[in-house]
Amino acid sequence: MRAVVLLSGGMDSLVTTAIAAHLGYELAALHINYGQRTEKRELVAFQKICDFYRIERRLEINFEHLSLIGGSSLTDLAMPVTTAKLHSKEIPTSYVAFRNANMLSVAVSWAEVIGANKIFIGAVDEDSSGYPDCRVNFFQAFNELIKHGTKPDTRIEIQTPVISLKKWEIVIKGMELEVPFEHSWSCYKSEHVACGVCDSCALRLRAFEQAGIRDPIEYKIRPSYI
Amino acid sequence: MRAVVLLSGGMDSLVTTAIAAHLGYELAALHINYGQRTEKRELVAFQKICDFYRIERRLEINFEHLSLIGGSSLTDLAMPVTTAKLHSKEIPTSYVAFRNANMLSVAVSWAEVIGANKIFIGAVDEDSSGYPDCRVNFFQAFNELIKHGTKPDTRIEIQTPVISLKKWEIVIKGMELEVPFEHSWSCYKSEHVACGVCDSCALRLRAFEQAGIRDPIEYKIRPSYI
Repeated sequence: MRAVVLLSGGMDSLVTTAIAAHLGYELAALHINYGQRTEKRELVAFQKICDFYRIERRLEINFEHLSLIGGSSLTDLAMPVTTAKLHSKEIPTSYVAFRNANMLSVAVSWAEVIGANKIFIGAVDEDSSGYPDCRVNFFQAFNELIKHGTKPDTRIEIQTPVISLKKWEIVIKGMELEVPFEHSWSCYKSEHVACGVCDSCALRLRAFEQAGIRDPIEYKIRPSYI
Repeated sequence: MRAVVLLSGGMDSLVTTAIAAHLGYELAALHINYGQRTEKRELVAFQKICDFYRIERRLEINFEHLSLIGGSSLTDLAMPVTTAKLHSKEIPTSYVAFRNANMLSVAVSWAEVIGANKIFIGAVDEDSSGYPDCRVNFFQAFNELIKHGTKPDTRIEIQTPVISLKKWEIVIKGMELEVPFEHSWSCYKSEHVACGVCDSCALRLRAFEQAGIRDPIEYKIRPSYI
């Protein structure tokens, strides 16, 4: 029973990895650098988490094209990272067009070659930043695509075990599974000490605050987001 | 009216480019190197075809991951390229798992950023080598995925103008549109003189033979496949 897990190194993918490990899958971990500002720091988190869960099969891939294409503050260094607006309905500037489809396509190619039949991804729907490719119906459509686009005897399915959880519930789930939150990295802006003010830091800090737990990583500033 | 065209440099993508140009689209051409044996030669074909159609916006992307993942004789140099068996129902060794999904995902990311609303791809269904991601229902599923995975105001649709044509009909279509077949490259095996015996050469030679036209490129050997 083998599965590919998309492991960015953030808290959602960490908890997703813990869930998949807990279910007994032999894991193969996929990490994708797509020219994001913090890619080196994320890679460290990826390696530490793989070590923790004793994942031997690891694949790091460079997606230079997502930065060549541009259009996102995550990958285009000329665009400022916006400060979090957690109650806005707008798609933030950190949106990378169709990013999850690019990542899942690689995961499916790899899964088909290594004989894995599940792909775990730590996407979060409701409580997320509003990216269109993080929603349940996107993953349902992707599962349909896999059926049509792989060999007739291939059975691969995307699993999104945290998609309907609130971020604070993901923290609780992580605590239950004793995940090493100290190894994870979420900040979009800095690689040294987490900034505490980008979208990703804000969502993470709020989640820990709502769960009543202190996030073990260090922040430059630690505002309250409740 | 802007469109992205996936342009490998082979005859199907060449004729597809000609069709899109004929329809009046302002074209942006995407070429993907995925570690295939003949990638340098294909890149030359891509550039010559872009020059011919005066396509200014060009994007060349390296997909190292498809060769890292392996599993195909196209990208794995340890696997021999099989000689064509045109009447076999088996998926050939040149199959790269989920390749078109990987390529189309990049095309959608790019299209969303540059404001293109069509993506042209020269996939051929019936008369093709039997790859699962070249069929009509795969592209329909991909169009559904795009609706779910892009911004609400984005309208991008995959166009497959040659999908239901026989290869020889693509040759005829190309002749009607006066495409520069001499600039295209199809061989999977060689970068200098086309081998004439790999799957791709065999399909191409048979197509020209059935169309009653001599393929203008040079072949090492030129067997009859009718």
